[in-house]
Amino acid sequence: MPKNKIEAFQETRDEQNQLVMKYAGKDLKRFYNLDWQIYRDGALPGRVKELIGLVSSLVLRCDDCILHHLTQCFEAGISDEELEEALAIGVIVGGSITIPHLRKAFQAWEELKKAKSPNKKEDS
Amino acid sequence: MPKNKIEAFQETRDEQNQLVMKYAGKDLKRFYNLDWQIYRDGALPGRVKELIGLVSSLVLRCDDCILHHLTQCFEAGISDEELEEALAIGVIVGGSITIPHLRKAFQAWEELKKAKSPNKKEDS
Amino acid sequence: MPKNKIEAFQETRDEQNQLVMKYAGKDLKRFYNLDWQIYRDGALPGRVKELIGLVSSLVLRCDDCILHHLTQCFEAGISDEELEEALAIGVIVGGSITIPHLRKAFQAWEELKKAKSPNKKEDS
Amino acid sequence: MPKNKIEAFQETRDEQNQLVMKYAGKDLKRFYNLDWQIYRDGALPGRVKELIGLVSSLVLRCDDCILHHLTQCFEAGISDEELEEALAIGVIVGGSITIPHLRKAFQAWEELKKAKSPNKKEDS
Amino acid sequence: MPKNKIEAFQETRDEQNQLVMKYAGKDLKRFYNLDWQIYRDGALPGRVKELIGLVSSLVLRCDDCILHHLTQCFEAGISDEELEEALAIGVIVGGSITIPHLRKAFQAWEELKKAKSPNKKEDS
Amino acid sequence: MPKNKIEAFQETRDEQNQLVMKYAGKDLKRFYNLDWQIYRDGALPGRVKELIGLVSSLVLRCDDCILHHLTQCFEAGISDEELEEALAIGVIVGGSITIPHLRKAFQAWEELKKAKSPNKKEDS
Repeated sequence: MPKNKIEAFQETRDEQNQLVMKYAGKDLKRFYNLDWQIYRDGALPGRVKELIGLVSSLVLRCDDCILHHLTQCFEAGISDEELEEALAIGVIVGGSITIPHLRKAFQAWEELKKAKSPNKKEDS
Repeated sequence: MPKNKIEAFQETRDEQNQLVMKYAGKDLKRFYNLDWQIYRDGALPGRVKELIGLVSSLVLRCDDCILHHLTQCFEAGISDEELEEALAIGVIVGGSITIPHLRKAFQAWEELKKAKSPNKKEDS
Repeated sequence: MPKNKIEAFQETRDEQNQLVMKYAGKDLKRFYNLDWQIYRDGALPGRVKELIGLVSSLVLRCDDCILHHLTQCFEAGISDEELEEALAIGVIVGGSITIPHLRKAFQAWEELKKAKSPNKKEDS
Repeated sequence: MPKNKIEAFQETRDEQNQLVMKYAGKDLKRFYNLDWQIYRDGALPGRVKELIGLVSSLVLRCDDCILHHLTQCFEAGISDEELEEALAIGVIVGGSITIPHLRKAFQAWEELKKAKSPNKKEDS
Repeated sequence: MPKNKIEAFQETRDEQNQLVMKYAGKDLKRFYNLDWQIYRDGALPGRVKELIGLVSSLVLRCDDCILHHLTQCFEAGISDEELEEALAIGVIVGGSITIPHLRKAFQAWEELKKAKSPNKKEDS
Repeated sequence: MPKNKIEAFQETRDEQNQLVMKYAGKDLKRFYNLDWQIYRDGALPGRVKELIGLVSSLVLRCDDCILHHLTQCFEAGISDEELEEALAIGVIVGGSITIPHLRKAFQAWEELKKAKSPNKKEDS
């Protein structure tokens, strides 16, 4: 079964991160660690933190970061409506310059939903 | 009783917004309107939307926008811990370049809390 | 006849926009609508507005946005000299970090001109 | 007669630029020179170039740059309507994060108009 | 003896950082710590790291960050010529939008030099 | 022998730059020229300037610019440790949003090292 685009992205990212770790000194390793810690459940639930990470990535216009947080939002059970409202804030705050990233975000979301559905059919 | 810094900011902003509206055409007015609508309660509660707006403003490094969303967060009853966790995400995503804005954010938060407290005492 | 790169971009964009509209709530739809309205002829002619949109996209470094406005500029009859002067402003304002986008902009412009020319020949 | 805010800004800028020139090497001096040249009349009239510079400054959110180009636009006879349409493009492209700068832009425009008018009166 | 602008900036920053630490959780504290560690002497000397931090701050256009690294560069014995060459790279990479920050950087550098000189005289 | 990714990038860039020069007016040509001049040996050695250019490109998140300066750093004999310390500064200053670019930077560095090594073996 062929990998979809999101799985391919994750595989490449994992390989590249291993290479980063080969070179990384103590400071960079600690930053990587911090970057994982901050999205855990705390006073704010992890799902809200992932939404915050997602919209931050949209307004800063980083496709890879959007894709990562989108996957986490999907795993955390964010609904279509919650996703749309969060992304709409990002578009209004960040302007039309974010729209190319919005387009890819919804495309990836659609793919995440299809990949999970047992009876998925045609796929462009 | 003298106005504090946040009240002074809000007064200036209101005056300037009236001036914008004097010049604004239909498109700009509609954008202003949209900018108000997107933070209403919906599938996501308004308080989560304000946190998203706040962190977006932090990573994009806009002090006035931070101050606005901080006030809304305060009104919405966001706790110190929730605020800190949200801002920490912004700092990790956006880097040390956001720290001068983080400093002003906590200073304004402190001021908001003192302004509300009935027995507030010394104030730097 | 195979599609050129710009036609392929437009087709993908149209498909993705349909997907966005499938998810979009009222606010996002209104923003999309606004984004179309602001480039119409008004006190400023549409061709000047497209140039403004183009250079804004260059300094914000968004290839898809550049490609969109470039196509609109081409349709509006912007000359090579007008284009070059506008892009030069973007490069001076935005710095050498914009140059990779400048390169793609001129490449797309060249393609737009070749696609229109009736006797176009070899094309890399 | 006291200086207004725009005159004060220009005076400070001129003093600081003299200091920059005291330190500047050949490359920096040439960049400063280029920065002046690109807004001259050419295939595009200078007034259009100033509008492009203005909106670029708005989407990149630089108050000093906005103030400079605004003054040039005023000198070039840009009308209220032309200004509003150009700034509206910047707001839609750059999002609500540009609004604090939009506010200051219209305030400065109002000041430029009052400074020119012979019978100007006081206005908060 | 009145404090100069840089000393005033440092005092405010220290006060605000204490307030940040009052609210900061473990993650934010660790980030603050990391932010101090990365400029130490290592394979690259601290003075080169401060220059890198300075130019990064210039292209990202953060006055407070520029002021901090400028002070560190001054303490590390960076010469006028080294400073000018580093800042010139920032201006070419980041464009004319960085110039307002360049102006303030040289003004602060001048102040740092005057504050150190034993026979300093008039000061604007 | 097939070209590696970096050689392919350089070839494309050279072709596109020739196209830019076909359209470029005097100002744009002078900017291109300036962009070459500023990395020469001066008060600061060229290798330090390339590191500054590299980290500026990382915090501004431009993959093509990173790739260019990375190649120059490699030619200038920058060590793995020097590279890692410089990039770590960029990541702390610019935040986790820079990490996708960091990943590509180390991947390109690895490729540069393999391309030079006479007995290079397996290659993912």
